Amino acid sequence: MEMANEEPKTVTQQITMKGGDGPLSYAQNSSLQKEVVDATKAMIIRAIANNLDMDKFCSQSSSQTFRIADFGCSIGPNTIFSMQNIIQALEQKHHETNHGNSSTILEFQLFFNDHSSNDFNTLFKSIPPSWPYFVAGVPGSFYGRLFPKSSIHIGHSSNALQWLSKVPQEVVDCKSPAYNDGSIYCRGIEKEVTKAYVAQFEKDMESFLNGRGEELVNGGLIVILMGGVPNGIPLSHTAIGKFYDLLGSCLLDLTNKGLVNEEKVKSFNLPLYFPSAKEVKELIERNGRFSIESMNEITEQLKRGQPLPSTQNCISHVRAGFEGLIKDHFGAEIVDEFFACYANKHLQSGFVFGDNAVDNTLMFMILKRI
Amino acid sequence: MEMANEEPKTVTQQITMKGGDGPLSYAQNSSLQKEVVDATKAMIIRAIANNLDMDKFCSQSSSQTFRIADFGCSIGPNTIFSMQNIIQALEQKHHETNHGNSSTILEFQLFFNDHSSNDFNTLFKSIPPSWPYFVAGVPGSFYGRLFPKSSIHIGHSSNALQWLSKVPQEVVDCKSPAYNDGSIYCRGIEKEVTKAYVAQFEKDMESFLNGRGEELVNGGLIVILMGGVPNGIPLSHTAIGKFYDLLGSCLLDLTNKGLVNEEKVKSFNLPLYFPSAKEVKELIERNGRFSIESMNEITEQLKRGQPLPSTQNCISHVRAGFEGLIKDHFGAEIVDEFFACYANKHLQSGFVFGDNAVDNTLMFMILKRI
Repeated sequence: MEMANEEPKTVTQQITMKGGDGPLSYAQNSSLQKEVVDATKAMIIRAIANNLDMDKFCSQSSSQTFRIADFGCSIGPNTIFSMQNIIQALEQKHHETNHGNSSTILEFQLFFNDHSSNDFNTLFKSIPPSWPYFVAGVPGSFYGRLFPKSSIHIGHSSNALQWLSKVPQEVVDCKSPAYNDGSIYCRGIEKEVTKAYVAQFEKDMESFLNGRGEELVNGGLIVILMGGVPNGIPLSHTAIGKFYDLLGSCLLDLTNKGLVNEEKVKSFNLPLYFPSAKEVKELIERNGRFSIESMNEITEQLKRGQPLPSTQNCISHVRAGFEGLIKDHFGAEIVDEFFACYANKHLQSGFVFGDNAVDNTLMFMILKRI
Repeated sequence: MEMANEEPKTVTQQITMKGGDGPLSYAQNSSLQKEVVDATKAMIIRAIANNLDMDKFCSQSSSQTFRIADFGCSIGPNTIFSMQNIIQALEQKHHETNHGNSSTILEFQLFFNDHSSNDFNTLFKSIPPSWPYFVAGVPGSFYGRLFPKSSIHIGHSSNALQWLSKVPQEVVDCKSPAYNDGSIYCRGIEKEVTKAYVAQFEKDMESFLNGRGEELVNGGLIVILMGGVPNGIPLSHTAIGKFYDLLGSCLLDLTNKGLVNEEKVKSFNLPLYFPSAKEVKELIERNGRFSIESMNEITEQLKRGQPLPSTQNCISHVRAGFEGLIKDHFGAEIVDEFFACYANKHLQSGFVFGDNAVDNTLMFMILKRI
């Protein structure tokens, strides 16, 4: 059994969002992700209504515990909203299944998972005091095992699976044909670079599916939301690609100012991969532990009627999400300068996620443990 | 169901040890407690060997999950050692029960519980990377419910149950006959003060036993270590009482220096009660949810052959344990002055826990859910 906390710390990365609840924290800067949570609420309720075999789980006893796990929960508040949505869906389904006549008391045990470097203290403080559920924080990578066999009924993972367990070694190896010194991410254009990223993504997805395959009960569901690209579109043509280009150009500016070593920049690559729905579908089918109950790309629904976030919001979001990575690789002393540079470019270009580029997709999937 | 996180935050107290892993932290200053853990290791192994009906739990399936919870775990490293001891005991018992022939794989899920204000981030970082167990942190008071019905096999609580859920209101009410303005703790001499503390202790123990009664599986064990007094001896005659007298005298010194308001000192009482074994035994029997499988007072065994901690160690211990309470009541600005005063008195008096006073007892109990 490969345990989540057994991974060698030197090669894998623990990417976590900025902790605390200050003005630059993830907790205060995750409203973009919140839009996703809101937009998918109805889909989660429908998915549980249509795909969960409630009778299979409900024992004959007077109480029934549902165990729900959020994989890659970060520090809230979105994980709180997501859990609440799932519970609402389960209660609704339970009520309908029993035509409102069941005397079985449902108990919910909620597991919040993220790396051990995640700020669980802040997460725990953000849990509503009036919540009538049992809660627990589970530290460790979701690319390893986190829970006992057949112990989870519903899994959830939002905006997390595009984060790889590590940067593929080849892309920062100057002797490799996959050396990616011209960009900080997988643009989807350089063949060897893409191959290395794809291999890492496939390995990670396989680990994720194998882990959850052990942990979910038979018939259990997992709700996955993850960033992606439309089939056949390289990431560099998309809004997210343009955004990473902007981040990369800030590093070059700092190099030109003599603040950052050029080699350091060349050895910096983002541990992120945005797949197409086709790729993900094939991986899940090849793995064979889950059936795909539904799979949607929901960008358009999301954008409709949603106001664009303010510029300042965007800048704070970026810092909340990327500060840890920048600090780890380049040192704490460069962080303020880097984000000042980013803010400047962002304001100058009037850059807003999605302008002048192909829209990214957000995949919404319901998988069932078979 | 009374949930742990439903308690009104204004009246109950969240007492947690000093976080982080700096020189004044609990993590670095809990070697006294570690002696307790070491001394009780053999007793835990014997208790599980003698009192656990392994066959009752082991299902016919190829794997068996044991869920173990530490109630009031603080931030390590002692909770880690305690968990390890319990696991060793379970593995040994499993091996003996099956004469070494079982093919059942044991999985362990470990729940670390403490208040949501506990420093879980530090705790999670101190978990050995090579640990092949599933771990989770559970925020909330153990005087409320923390786990689903019948979901825990072994409970553990060390040095935690003498902490009350709150200071009894009467002892800080100047209009009450139980007003305890002459001392910062329950000396066990003033009748009305003692009555108020006893009532709170009884209520809290009842809540603890009711909570665990729901959560433990039938036949599950709970290992309790808690501080106490010998039957019939008031706390003020014991080493711990003398120590609280010393702490209290520091507050008076600060009052005399004009640094602390006298009324503030009068309204400060420690939320601690040290019972006798007789009191605890009666409460458990009255509650009726657990049988007492064994009950020992182990002070003497502990002291034998143990070197006394150094003075500096003692001072750091005290700060790690009491800084939070002092800060909450008197404000952060007084903390350094207070502990400087304490260190000074400690050094002058050559005060070491246990000198010139009756020894306190440490109760070691094994309860079985019936």
